[in-house]
Amino acid sequence: MLLPAQKPIPNIPQSNLPKVVIVGAGFGGLKLARKLIKGPYQVIVLDKNNYHQFQPLFYQVATAGLEPSAISFPLRKVFHNTPNTIFRMAEVHSFDTKMKRLYTDIGFLDYDHLVLAMGADTNYFGNKSIEYNAIPMKTVSEALYIRNKIISNYERAINIEKQEDRKSLMNVVIVGGGPTGVELAGAMAELRNNVFPKDYPELNFSNMKVVLIEAGPKLLGAMSEESQKHSLKYLQDLGVDVMLDTKVHDYNGEEVKLEGKAPISTHTLLWAAGIKPNFVDGLGKEHFAPNGRIYVDEYNRVIGEDGIYVLGDVALQREENYPKGHPQVAQVALQQADNLGKNLIGLAGGKQMKQFHYKDLGSMATVGRKLAVVDLPFIKFQGLMAWLTWLFVHLMAILGVKNKMFIFMDWAWNYLSFDPSLRLLIKPKYVRASERKELIEEK
Amino acid sequence: MLLPAQKPIPNIPQSNLPKVVIVGAGFGGLKLARKLIKGPYQVIVLDKNNYHQFQPLFYQVATAGLEPSAISFPLRKVFHNTPNTIFRMAEVHSFDTKMKRLYTDIGFLDYDHLVLAMGADTNYFGNKSIEYNAIPMKTVSEALYIRNKIISNYERAINIEKQEDRKSLMNVVIVGGGPTGVELAGAMAELRNNVFPKDYPELNFSNMKVVLIEAGPKLLGAMSEESQKHSLKYLQDLGVDVMLDTKVHDYNGEEVKLEGKAPISTHTLLWAAGIKPNFVDGLGKEHFAPNGRIYVDEYNRVIGEDGIYVLGDVALQREENYPKGHPQVAQVALQQADNLGKNLIGLAGGKQMKQFHYKDLGSMATVGRKLAVVDLPFIKFQGLMAWLTWLFVHLMAILGVKNKMFIFMDWAWNYLSFDPSLRLLIKPKYVRASERKELIEEK
Repeated sequence: MLLPAQKPIPNIPQSNLPKVVIVGAGFGGLKLARKLIKGPYQVIVLDKNNYHQFQPLFYQVATAGLEPSAISFPLRKVFHNTPNTIFRMAEVHSFDTKMKRLYTDIGFLDYDHLVLAMGADTNYFGNKSIEYNAIPMKTVSEALYIRNKIISNYERAINIEKQEDRKSLMNVVIVGGGPTGVELAGAMAELRNNVFPKDYPELNFSNMKVVLIEAGPKLLGAMSEESQKHSLKYLQDLGVDVMLDTKVHDYNGEEVKLEGKAPISTHTLLWAAGIKPNFVDGLGKEHFAPNGRIYVDEYNRVIGEDGIYVLGDVALQREENYPKGHPQVAQVALQQADNLGKNLIGLAGGKQMKQFHYKDLGSMATVGRKLAVVDLPFIKFQGLMAWLTWLFVHLMAILGVKNKMFIFMDWAWNYLSFDPSLRLLIKPKYVRASERKELIEEK
Repeated sequence: MLLPAQKPIPNIPQSNLPKVVIVGAGFGGLKLARKLIKGPYQVIVLDKNNYHQFQPLFYQVATAGLEPSAISFPLRKVFHNTPNTIFRMAEVHSFDTKMKRLYTDIGFLDYDHLVLAMGADTNYFGNKSIEYNAIPMKTVSEALYIRNKIISNYERAINIEKQEDRKSLMNVVIVGGGPTGVELAGAMAELRNNVFPKDYPELNFSNMKVVLIEAGPKLLGAMSEESQKHSLKYLQDLGVDVMLDTKVHDYNGEEVKLEGKAPISTHTLLWAAGIKPNFVDGLGKEHFAPNGRIYVDEYNRVIGEDGIYVLGDVALQREENYPKGHPQVAQVALQQADNLGKNLIGLAGGKQMKQFHYKDLGSMATVGRKLAVVDLPFIKFQGLMAWLTWLFVHLMAILGVKNKMFIFMDWAWNYLSFDPSLRLLIKPKYVRASERKELIEEK
């Protein structure tokens, strides 16, 4: 980590308004920033990327169905003509609660209200060799990496003489039976069943295994029993080897070792088995739960601190029905941001803050073509109708008319053609000669 | 360079047909392969990428108007259900004309007919410091790199206090007044005039220079005088500093030194000033012109060699009207491929080969919104009609219905919104931990 920069971030317009600094422009941070655009604050949004990422569709980037740009939205575009809302691309290191000052790689920033909305990253639960060899999927870059990796594995496999020796390049193993794992496994199986055999007539794809491993006894643990059963059946019908009650012991890059079961050969282990909140240094140990979440009160305030708020995956907020905190999903972050936005605007007018109550709007997951499961508060359904619901809800949730339009077209194309056409190995090959050393040092 | 692999490329289906090996799937190589799909040959197409690149639109990728995937086409998709045509992703090192054997990084391959269609790469004319510091644009990766570079320059500039110190990050200098340079300069100027000021309200874009440098006395040297004049005027109206009769002496990454003129500060020097043919080892020196092109006869055969053909940018073929060889443009490669395809098919039937004659269908370049120049054999026109012609011709030339559809939508969107929305800095950030060393060694 770099030392905190010693100068203030330059070129922030002077303002008499109190300053809200938002760390992270994911679902929570971006929603809050948009909520405050016309509020009585100067709002500064910081993110390490210059775009908002729509995580629920990462798996479609990984499986060549969508382009990264379809599910990424330029943050500067959100803040056109919003003089009191400023975006900066920056990495946040730490903050000082007494000085009310935040340190970043581009300088420091003084705040009146600080909102921590950094989201979560992949959790390998301390297993270094899995961390070293597995592939995560918590950013657009990682999703694109998965796509490139799988395509280049087949381009390699085709040059190997013996069927036996190709197996580890062809097999794909996914760990984690939550929505991400289920959606990835389903999409990979569809590629194997419908697309890859046409692309690689020399390879025998009946030898390619798609394996989904879950440590617990059920897939989609947070959903209804109907959804769990249906998703399992859908995956099995697509030819996914679903292994429940199975723990990954280790992975060396070529073979997955399982507890009490035969190992599986694969160069491609996709890790969707856990998340941990991103960390910014500034609060005492007493504020952190063992899982890394930060305890907040019913107003998303860090207890005992002045003007520090936490949203979404990072926040641990207890309610009657959620004694261990809310689930780490987009809906919670969005609703908390909505409530906090109202409270911050009210605060400036001397109003009392409103408590947050999570309203579970339901959940859904898609397994494949015409196959999805939906749990709504009053109804559960599966199959074609669930799939159409899933498509509609995700299309509506994505930011920007152009993104909606292009995703709709991509989906229509993929549906009609059975041929997601983004099987391009556009690797980050080119680096300007004078920067090659720089790149190496960065890593 | 690796040593030639010692084993044959595995998994090439057995065939009694004579074998045509095509090196490079650019305009020439791909056209020839498609021409031969039903011919009496086993055709093996080799390219270092798994996609065909549509070079004429690289500049739109560089200027955030199109996604790389819109102008790249998966080669394996072209060869679905074509049992006699096989694609392999490979780097070709050399060939042995006596053994009729080609060496690649995935093994060797014996041929009956070898077609060299490797295209050309950027030519820095021996200036190492320009090569080290400038940015080329001869691949999709390089075009994407330009886009990322420019966006990250502004994200950096915004954090610099003094206007003066920001200049070199904001200025863009383009060298080479051919179609690529003209198109890049126009598109950059439009971004500066319409898009960047909204994205970066803190920066003063009237201080951003877009400079186009050409060593000769005219832009678009190969086009008509009307086109040269109009393109110059269009660029100047857009606010491009066009410097004719100006030679770049050197570039250290921060300042462009010019012969006899004041230097220009810039971190971004885009080099579109020259090309040189890609090289594969195998022919004697006597076959090469000083500019690296390979002499061929009127049938695209290498003179005095058996079964070796050269297409496109690499070929130097003289005709009455082209005593120094044809221009290195897509049209020549396409027409040569068409003729060679017919000749190879005819050859198998014992027919005599037909001589190649280049038919110049005209040329065009676009400068900006509603601004283009078109030279057709019997008519020359400029402005809106030329722009519409340019759009139509390029849309029709791009491979694949989906690519056509998406490019059309992108263009319509960009036209209506004045807002090419791909300003995403999706850097190749993620590399799996276990591969980071590999990446470093590759560079």
